[in-house]
Amino acid sequence: MRTTTARAYPNIALVKYWGKADEELILPAAGSLSLTLDHFETTTTVVPAPEAATDVLELDGSLADPGQTNRISVFLDHVRELAGREDRVLVRSRNSVPTGAGLASSASGFAALATAAAAAFDLDLDARELSRLARRGSGSACRSIAAGMAVWHAGDDESSFAESVDAPDMRMIIVTVNRARKAVSSREAMRLTAETSPFYSGWVSSTEDYLEQMVAACSAEDFTRIGEITESHALRMHGLIQSTVPPIRFLNPTSHAIFDAVAEAREHGIKAYSTADAGPNVAVIVRPSDAEALAERLSGFGDVRVVGPGPGAHLLTAADEVPPAAGTSAGEGSHA
Amino acid sequence: MRTTTARAYPNIALVKYWGKADEELILPAAGSLSLTLDHFETTTTVVPAPEAATDVLELDGSLADPGQTNRISVFLDHVRELAGREDRVLVRSRNSVPTGAGLASSASGFAALATAAAAAFDLDLDARELSRLARRGSGSACRSIAAGMAVWHAGDDESSFAESVDAPDMRMIIVTVNRARKAVSSREAMRLTAETSPFYSGWVSSTEDYLEQMVAACSAEDFTRIGEITESHALRMHGLIQSTVPPIRFLNPTSHAIFDAVAEAREHGIKAYSTADAGPNVAVIVRPSDAEALAERLSGFGDVRVVGPGPGAHLLTAADEVPPAAGTSAGEGSHA
Repeated sequence: MRTTTARAYPNIALVKYWGKADEELILPAAGSLSLTLDHFETTTTVVPAPEAATDVLELDGSLADPGQTNRISVFLDHVRELAGREDRVLVRSRNSVPTGAGLASSASGFAALATAAAAAFDLDLDARELSRLARRGSGSACRSIAAGMAVWHAGDDESSFAESVDAPDMRMIIVTVNRARKAVSSREAMRLTAETSPFYSGWVSSTEDYLEQMVAACSAEDFTRIGEITESHALRMHGLIQSTVPPIRFLNPTSHAIFDAVAEAREHGIKAYSTADAGPNVAVIVRPSDAEALAERLSGFGDVRVVGPGPGAHLLTAADEVPPAAGTSAGEGSHA
Repeated sequence: MRTTTARAYPNIALVKYWGKADEELILPAAGSLSLTLDHFETTTTVVPAPEAATDVLELDGSLADPGQTNRISVFLDHVRELAGREDRVLVRSRNSVPTGAGLASSASGFAALATAAAAAFDLDLDARELSRLARRGSGSACRSIAAGMAVWHAGDDESSFAESVDAPDMRMIIVTVNRARKAVSSREAMRLTAETSPFYSGWVSSTEDYLEQMVAACSAEDFTRIGEITESHALRMHGLIQSTVPPIRFLNPTSHAIFDAVAEAREHGIKAYSTADAGPNVAVIVRPSDAEALAERLSGFGDVRVVGPGPGAHLLTAADEVPPAAGTSAGEGSHA
C-alpha cells in the first residue's frame, strides 16, 4: 500500500439520473448523460493507516462528522474487498465548491476517492472498473471518472458504468442562486419520487428514449438538438419531482427567471439551453463563442461561472497531497 | 322562442381537469372538483333572430371574430338539435374579467350561454341536463352550472355532468400577476400533453384517486386535507404540463414566489394552499377568518381579490339584458 492523491471534477447531467433500480448496488432505473466540468474539483489523498481501528475522514481541513465518515467507510469496504485487505485509511479531501450547495460534491468526491483508494490498495483497475467502483459511492460519481461528455449505461452491476462519448465543444454557465443547504437531500427526494409519484414509470421509460436521441445528437454534433433535449429533460425531471407526495420544488423563482432569460436569449439568436439538478442553481449550455456574452446577461441572477468540458478522474503526484487538518497528525486522525 | 338573459361565474378547480377522453363529446379523462366563485361573472343575452342566416356574437360590446362566433355557433347547434329548431340567434355577452388572462371566461361563458339558450329555445332541462349541455361548449363550463363546490363526474355522455357537494366555507384569494394573453391556449396545451407527455397515463389514473380523497375531505369538512390535495394536485398538473414536447411552463417566477409565500404563511399558522390554472395567476384557498390578513400579505405580488363560493348559473330578468353593441342593431349584427 502507498499514499496516493487523485483529483476529479463534478458533472452536470444533460439527460438526468433520477431513480434507482437497485439501492444496494446503486444501479440506475435508466441511463443518463453528463458533462464532466473543468472547475470545482475535489482533491483527495488516501494515507494507509494499518494500525488504525477505523477509517478517518478529514474534509476541507476538519474532521468529518460520523455520518460522512461512515459513508466513505462503507465505500472503502468495497475497495478492501477487491484488494483482499483489511487496512484502514486516513482520507483527506478538499472541495472547491461548498458542500450541499446544489453542485453536488458527492460525484467528484467519490470519483476522486475511488481513484486514489484503488491506487493506494494497489488495485489494477481499468477506466470501466473504476467507474463501476465509483458508482458504489454515489451513482453520478461513475460519470466523473470519464472526461467531458459521458454516458452512464444503466445495466447490471457488471455493465453499469460510464464512458466518454464524442460531442461538440461547448461551455456551461453555472448560475449559483442560493448557497443555502437544501431542505431535502437528492437521495431522499429520489426515494420519495419512486415511492409516491404516479409519473415515475413514465419518467423511467421515456428517459431511455431521450438518452438514445441524445447520444445520436452528440455524435452528429447537433448542438441545437442536444440543447432541446437538455432543457426538456431537466423540466421533465423537475415536473416529476413536483409530483411527489408531499410535493418537492427544488427550483425557486430566480431559477425560473433564468430559464425565462435563456429562452429570451434564444429569441435573440443565442443558442443556449438550461438545466438544473436537485437545487435552485441553473446550468446553461452554450456554444463557446456565445459564452461570455450570455454570462454577462445572466450575471444579475447570481454568481456566474463559465466552465468547459473537464478531464476524467486522475492521479496526482505527492506534491499535490492534501495537507493534514490543523490539530491532527496524519495517519491517526486525533483531534482537539 | 323568447329573449333570455343568464349569468354564470367562473370556477377554479381544486382537483384539476387536464385531458380529454373524447374530444368530440368533451368527456374528461378523469373527474375533477372546483369552486364556483361569486365574482368575475359573465352575463349573456340570447335574442331570437329567425330571419338571420347565421348566429351573431357580440362580446363585451364588440362584434366577435369569426373563430369565436363559429365556436358558439357549433355549440348552439346542440341546443337547436335538442329543441328541434333551426333558428339563428344573436348572443350578447359581457365578461367582468379580461378574456384569456388565465381566469378562464370560457367556463362562465358557456354556462351562461347554455342557461340562456336553453330558455330561449323553451327547453325544459334540469340542472344535470344543463350541466351536460354546457360541457359541450367547454368542459369546465359544466361545473359553473353548479353552485359552490362542484364535482364533475367523468363518465360517458349521459353521466358526465357536475353537481354541488358539501364543503366547509372558505375564501379564495385570486392573485392576478399577468393579464397578458398566454402564448399557448389551454385547449392546445391539453392536447399536446396527451400526445407527448410520458406522465399522462399516471396523471389520469392518480387524478381519480385524488378526487375520491377530495370528496371525502370535503364531506368531512377537513380543510387541511382539502388544502393539501389542492396544492399537491396543482403542482402535479404543472409538472405534467412541463413534461410535454416542447415543454410548456404556465407558471412564471412570480407565481412560484406566491407558492413560496403561501408555504411560509403556513409556517406562521395560516392554513392556506395554492393552486393555478393554465396561466401564471395563483388562487389561494384559506379559511374565511384568515382571508383578509393573507390577502394583505400577498398584495405585493399583483392584483389581489378575495372571493367566495358563488351561485350556479341562473336566469335573470329582462332588466338585466346585455345592451346591444354600439353601431349594431339588435338582431342583425351589422357593423361599421
